[in-house]
Amino acid sequence: MSLDAVLAKIDTDLSDATERLKELLRIPSISTDPAYAQHCQTAADWLVADLARLGVPAQKRETPGHPMVVGHINEDSDGPHLLFYGHYDVQPVDPLDLWDNDPFDPQVEDTAKGQVIRGRGSADDKGQLMTFLEACRAWTHVHGALPCRITFFFEGEEESGSPSLVPFMQENADELRADIALICDTGLFESKTPAIVTMLRGLLGEEFTIQGPDIDLHSGMYGGISINPIRVMGKVIAGLHDDEGRITVPHFYDGVAELSDEMEAQWQGLAFDHAHFLGEVGLSHPAGEQDRTPLEMIWSRPTCEVNGIWGGYTGDGFKTVLPAQAHAKISFRLVGDQDPEAIRANFRAYVQSMLPEDCTVEFKGHSSGAASATETTDPMFEKARQALSTEWGVPAAYVGCGGSIPIAGHFQNILDTTPMLIGFGKDDDALHSPNEKYDVESFHKGIRSWARILDALT
Amino acid sequence: MSLDAVLAKIDTDLSDATERLKELLRIPSISTDPAYAQHCQTAADWLVADLARLGVPAQKRETPGHPMVVGHINEDSDGPHLLFYGHYDVQPVDPLDLWDNDPFDPQVEDTAKGQVIRGRGSADDKGQLMTFLEACRAWTHVHGALPCRITFFFEGEEESGSPSLVPFMQENADELRADIALICDTGLFESKTPAIVTMLRGLLGEEFTIQGPDIDLHSGMYGGISINPIRVMGKVIAGLHDDEGRITVPHFYDGVAELSDEMEAQWQGLAFDHAHFLGEVGLSHPAGEQDRTPLEMIWSRPTCEVNGIWGGYTGDGFKTVLPAQAHAKISFRLVGDQDPEAIRANFRAYVQSMLPEDCTVEFKGHSSGAASATETTDPMFEKARQALSTEWGVPAAYVGCGGSIPIAGHFQNILDTTPMLIGFGKDDDALHSPNEKYDVESFHKGIRSWARILDALT
Repeated sequence: MSLDAVLAKIDTDLSDATERLKELLRIPSISTDPAYAQHCQTAADWLVADLARLGVPAQKRETPGHPMVVGHINEDSDGPHLLFYGHYDVQPVDPLDLWDNDPFDPQVEDTAKGQVIRGRGSADDKGQLMTFLEACRAWTHVHGALPCRITFFFEGEEESGSPSLVPFMQENADELRADIALICDTGLFESKTPAIVTMLRGLLGEEFTIQGPDIDLHSGMYGGISINPIRVMGKVIAGLHDDEGRITVPHFYDGVAELSDEMEAQWQGLAFDHAHFLGEVGLSHPAGEQDRTPLEMIWSRPTCEVNGIWGGYTGDGFKTVLPAQAHAKISFRLVGDQDPEAIRANFRAYVQSMLPEDCTVEFKGHSSGAASATETTDPMFEKARQALSTEWGVPAAYVGCGGSIPIAGHFQNILDTTPMLIGFGKDDDALHSPNEKYDVESFHKGIRSWARILDALT
Repeated sequence: MSLDAVLAKIDTDLSDATERLKELLRIPSISTDPAYAQHCQTAADWLVADLARLGVPAQKRETPGHPMVVGHINEDSDGPHLLFYGHYDVQPVDPLDLWDNDPFDPQVEDTAKGQVIRGRGSADDKGQLMTFLEACRAWTHVHGALPCRITFFFEGEEESGSPSLVPFMQENADELRADIALICDTGLFESKTPAIVTMLRGLLGEEFTIQGPDIDLHSGMYGGISINPIRVMGKVIAGLHDDEGRITVPHFYDGVAELSDEMEAQWQGLAFDHAHFLGEVGLSHPAGEQDRTPLEMIWSRPTCEVNGIWGGYTGDGFKTVLPAQAHAKISFRLVGDQDPEAIRANFRAYVQSMLPEDCTVEFKGHSSGAASATETTDPMFEKARQALSTEWGVPAAYVGCGGSIPIAGHFQNILDTTPMLIGFGKDDDALHSPNEKYDVESFHKGIRSWARILDALT
């Protein structure tokens, strides 16, 4: 009855909610590029102000990097203590020329598949973060107050490896500890089935530079006799996978477990349509380990991908240079008990082993986070799953996720708080890509989903 | 006697000659980048004006690309008709941050090895081009006129594949044909022995883009199941050479002849110090075909080098993108009778053969030119070699050259004019690299060398 009133308020308030989201999307809070640091501050200030509008006292909490935003409400109430997490930072926007409009001038567009909110961060993660705030806004409007103790915890470094997160959680563990941590940074299964993610891959990032000659050389004068670091880089990259798609770094698969029969059966039940999943981005052929199913490739198997490579002359025209250096950025997705730092060391040893005479390598380590898996024994999981099933009209599923949300593991390990990952993104949201979008349906039903979950958990 | 007067004038005029060269070096005539087209015009105008100062009527001759400069003097005189060729365009300057000063603000610097003229184009090829003009200037000052019929022919597209050169030579063959073509765009052997280059490698340039998915993807969501074009590029590059350093493109070695015993003996006589050659640029190990001598690697064997590569995220920080495209620029140095266009076709077929499912490739062809070898039977070669030996105090040598100067072949094939390649560059001039320089010794003795050659040939 009172839930119906909240849902009705959400429906009537949707266009205002969309305008609020567009305000937040206009702030170019790119966390990985120092040039945008001030904009990250602005986004944090915006969230503090919006929480105040909800009657939630919140502060911007400085870190060595970009600030956290923390707010608390109903601290003395009984009943469950929920923590809600989202991140206000976004990915860089290049290649900018592939965007149909300004990534930071969000627009609501009509598409063949319905209305979308277009802009950097619309799906990852500002739009998702706002689904929870809007649910709280409607709830407060109808009831005058939120139903239980809630801690709001927003980060601004998720897209750049969360360097400040672990120290901040450790220093503020008592303040942040809750009964459950609701994390909204994941998607629907196949764009239609609501899902609670219980398995997340870890991440390890490495950047390295292979040096050959001291200086760039003339490929006519030195070509043939001098080592070319780009050719060495080619061999390093080509050697990372064998012909079956397995990663060749020594001991890489230590700690990678096989799927339980139960999980395997549940995933088969999902009847994943990988042809559609790949077709959405112009592909047709699962390119991973040839003896694994498509769902295993993206959920339960580790990967090694080259995220960037550069060296020599990359401008217009042609320059017959034999370059002094070649560079690459490589990331690993980790599963099970794989040890990120052990893999970092083994990867570096592998690269060293591939270097011919006269070549040296310099490494720059980027972030690392182990994989995480969540027990779903707490009854709150089943309550949330039911709420999602009711809102979306299909049974919600417990699924894996190829992405890495290290914070899920941190909640478990540092705060002893069980993470519950629920999100409403779709496979064609173009996360981290040009023309990123978030469906208005995801936003609207996402807000309604949180209202139902708040109702179910309290 | 009169030669001594010319040489004396050259010595007293050196600082003025250096100032004139610095004027030309200040013009950023980068031919490969359309943004610098106007500067190429300015450089051509400067040369027309300088030829006028020598009493040589010259014109800027427009082409679809950058203009040629052509001047004639003593057209009705008997005796030999010499043509002199140089190019006024230069290479791009990136990476700019590796230059110690502005590449287009040339400076004379004192170094441990003597004075150098520092700046883009100082050695390739403006400084070398000016050695001939300054010799003519001194000669004219002493004698009131030049000793024979001379055609001056300067190009502005040598660093960008000379697209206009062949048509221009064909249309103006009768005007340009001469008894011998003096080309000043090569170096001393091991920085000390004057050399006449009789063997030049050809060049073939290719640029290509490997496309995987339609758009950049999130490596968490798609990593493992989606093909990564950078990984494919790595395999393409790694596969271009076998473990012995031989190029694997089918039929690549068709038309590659073995050295004649005579040439092999002459080259052994040169006692090439490859340890020093490589040591100058921080290397120690000849990296080419393992069954070839270092001189063969740079003079008489073909090569395949990657000149540039790029794809994915290459900025600061880290972006877990699985890119849609990877790009590379590759060039081949050709020898003997290798057919550039046949190799282009076989290379493209090789790349196609390396593509997995879901990948496509687009090629962009860059310039190509076959290798060339010159007969030294014309007595003018021996006269010039003697003149060089006298100036430098060591016997001049007939040598090969790893670089590609397609115009040498064009003079032979289109104008039926024998090219004579004489230059004064040194191995540490950093051609095509940051901090390019030309030794004042190269410039000074280069001018004196041309005066002696003019005297010897007339």
